[in-house]
Amino acid sequence: MKEVHISLGERSYDIHINSQLLTDKKLLASYAAGKQVVVITNETVAPLYLDQVSAAFSEHELHTIVLKDGESTKNLDTYKEIIDFMIGVPCDRLSTIIALGGGVIGDLSGFVAATYQRGISFVQIPTTLLAQVDSSVGGKTGVNHPSGKNMIGAFNQPKTVIADIDTLLTLDDRQFSAGMAEVIKYGAIRDLALFQWLETNITAVMQKDAEAVAHIIKRSCENKRDIVEQDEQEHGVRALLNLGHTFGHAIETATHYQRFLHGEAVSIGMAMAADLSLRLGWIGQEECDRLSALLKKAGLPVEPVSGLDPAVLRELMQGDKKVLDGTLRLILMKGIGDSVIAENVDGASINATLEAFTSN
Amino acid sequence: MKEVHISLGERSYDIHINSQLLTDKKLLASYAAGKQVVVITNETVAPLYLDQVSAAFSEHELHTIVLKDGESTKNLDTYKEIIDFMIGVPCDRLSTIIALGGGVIGDLSGFVAATYQRGISFVQIPTTLLAQVDSSVGGKTGVNHPSGKNMIGAFNQPKTVIADIDTLLTLDDRQFSAGMAEVIKYGAIRDLALFQWLETNITAVMQKDAEAVAHIIKRSCENKRDIVEQDEQEHGVRALLNLGHTFGHAIETATHYQRFLHGEAVSIGMAMAADLSLRLGWIGQEECDRLSALLKKAGLPVEPVSGLDPAVLRELMQGDKKVLDGTLRLILMKGIGDSVIAENVDGASINATLEAFTSN
Repeated sequence: MKEVHISLGERSYDIHINSQLLTDKKLLASYAAGKQVVVITNETVAPLYLDQVSAAFSEHELHTIVLKDGESTKNLDTYKEIIDFMIGVPCDRLSTIIALGGGVIGDLSGFVAATYQRGISFVQIPTTLLAQVDSSVGGKTGVNHPSGKNMIGAFNQPKTVIADIDTLLTLDDRQFSAGMAEVIKYGAIRDLALFQWLETNITAVMQKDAEAVAHIIKRSCENKRDIVEQDEQEHGVRALLNLGHTFGHAIETATHYQRFLHGEAVSIGMAMAADLSLRLGWIGQEECDRLSALLKKAGLPVEPVSGLDPAVLRELMQGDKKVLDGTLRLILMKGIGDSVIAENVDGASINATLEAFTSN
Repeated sequence: MKEVHISLGERSYDIHINSQLLTDKKLLASYAAGKQVVVITNETVAPLYLDQVSAAFSEHELHTIVLKDGESTKNLDTYKEIIDFMIGVPCDRLSTIIALGGGVIGDLSGFVAATYQRGISFVQIPTTLLAQVDSSVGGKTGVNHPSGKNMIGAFNQPKTVIADIDTLLTLDDRQFSAGMAEVIKYGAIRDLALFQWLETNITAVMQKDAEAVAHIIKRSCENKRDIVEQDEQEHGVRALLNLGHTFGHAIETATHYQRFLHGEAVSIGMAMAADLSLRLGWIGQEECDRLSALLKKAGLPVEPVSGLDPAVLRELMQGDKKVLDGTLRLILMKGIGDSVIAENVDGASINATLEAFTSN
């Protein structure tokens, strides 16, 4: 068992990383203090893992909510349906929510938990690599608005994160690669050793070797932990975690969330951040190439996106949540393992990068 | 100027209590860090104070939302309308919300602020006595659900509370009395000196003498502060603030929020809590009478409520948010200034109190 402890005062918690955690009834049940347990999951995950997880709560009053799979369920309407359901049960302030699924389930469930009767406990059981290395850790919860992702939400830490690496064996390769974008991101922003380890061991990782996978999840969680402990609510350094994300969100929005998984868009976005850093003279061609090469080996796209207008992307970037008082902040690289928050970046260079990564 | 400082680590803030605060442009403007300011108020308060408050933000980009007056606006639909409006502006993470009004405006605005882009700053400008002594202090925010009050919400502390006692001069007597219920409550639960001071000075208070009013607001905020600092999220001692509230909520619900203001229902609820404490032998008749006498002098009801079925009230109490794992917790009195959280209270005594305070 690998464990990562997140120290946030009374909001501290442990991340458990191992095989066969979902069958560890004692571990799961230990996090449900009250009588009612509400498992929130989706149609893809439910047939695979709902029975296993449910078995742990035989002493509790168990309720299950199975949502449609996909980003489109992450909205205020679904939020309200879940609240209505829980009030109908009725759940009280000691009830526990279990988020069983990927990032959509975790974000939505965490926001329900943050606001049901002003906050109840919730447990993250991430079943995708992306959720295990990123979205389940750090307490960002929320739902989308027609005008933008995660526009409504709360910072709300779970009671624990239970990352069972066995669940990755049922994850398709494209989804696994999408998760790798965030793993490589930690290397690029602050962990040269992880980046080098990935360059050497990428084959074992992509074959889902248990030791290799557990290692990258642990290192990813530790990197995220180090940043979140410094800046839980993203007033400063936490913004580094958005490397590739401002470009990536613009690409996702411009392609209506249809063409790319989040991790794929972030991969292209990181290649763009490296390209822009190169244009500014902050990194060299070699570092740019190393990042692209590793992303490619992880099965991720780094090529120009067809059918996109650079001017539209520029406009979308300006509407990003990270824009404060009209100032665009970008995460750029000074080296591999050394990213920085940059303001007032030369507009012509931004446009050159956007041109280079779009085509008709 | 009277000030009360609330110490909650990085969520600490000051309460300003004085005349002529709404015309102090420098004070108000100092709490709006970003570019956009959104003032949320209602149709009753807007004609009286919106111009004054708006004048402070001439250097900002000012937006105004004027809602219908009354508890019925405090719901998820209004919440969503405000979020939609702010996204349309667009507001960013540095934008500030100003809640100008009573408890409904404060609770709703605070919940919007808690969740807009995962949390932005907000300022409480309470314009009712109830809001100045209770709802604007302590960080409880939220909206109602058709099945119950404040079922959806968050703990979210404001950047400051600005209690301008001049606003109480436009408050009608019934609303002023309703606020007094919470002031008397602080005396009853933990502040014998305040209770005795009120017994002596109730006439000056009810005439809205500026010194007397500023004194009771300050002492109320200090009492609430002392409790909230110990237990921000109501895991324990904060429940004491609910003296009279479990009975009161049941009365409000049974009368469909039409007959009684919140403070009036709490007044009857406190009389009931004292009656039940007397039946249990925890206080004497004299203490029971002193509480009722003071409530009456403050213009509050303490008599049996006509047309109510005790069994219905009992049922509603069991559905209260304070019920955990099926256990009803009541706040009862061991003396004036000495209330306690009581569990497993004798059911026959509860029923006797319910019988005594209802009539056909």
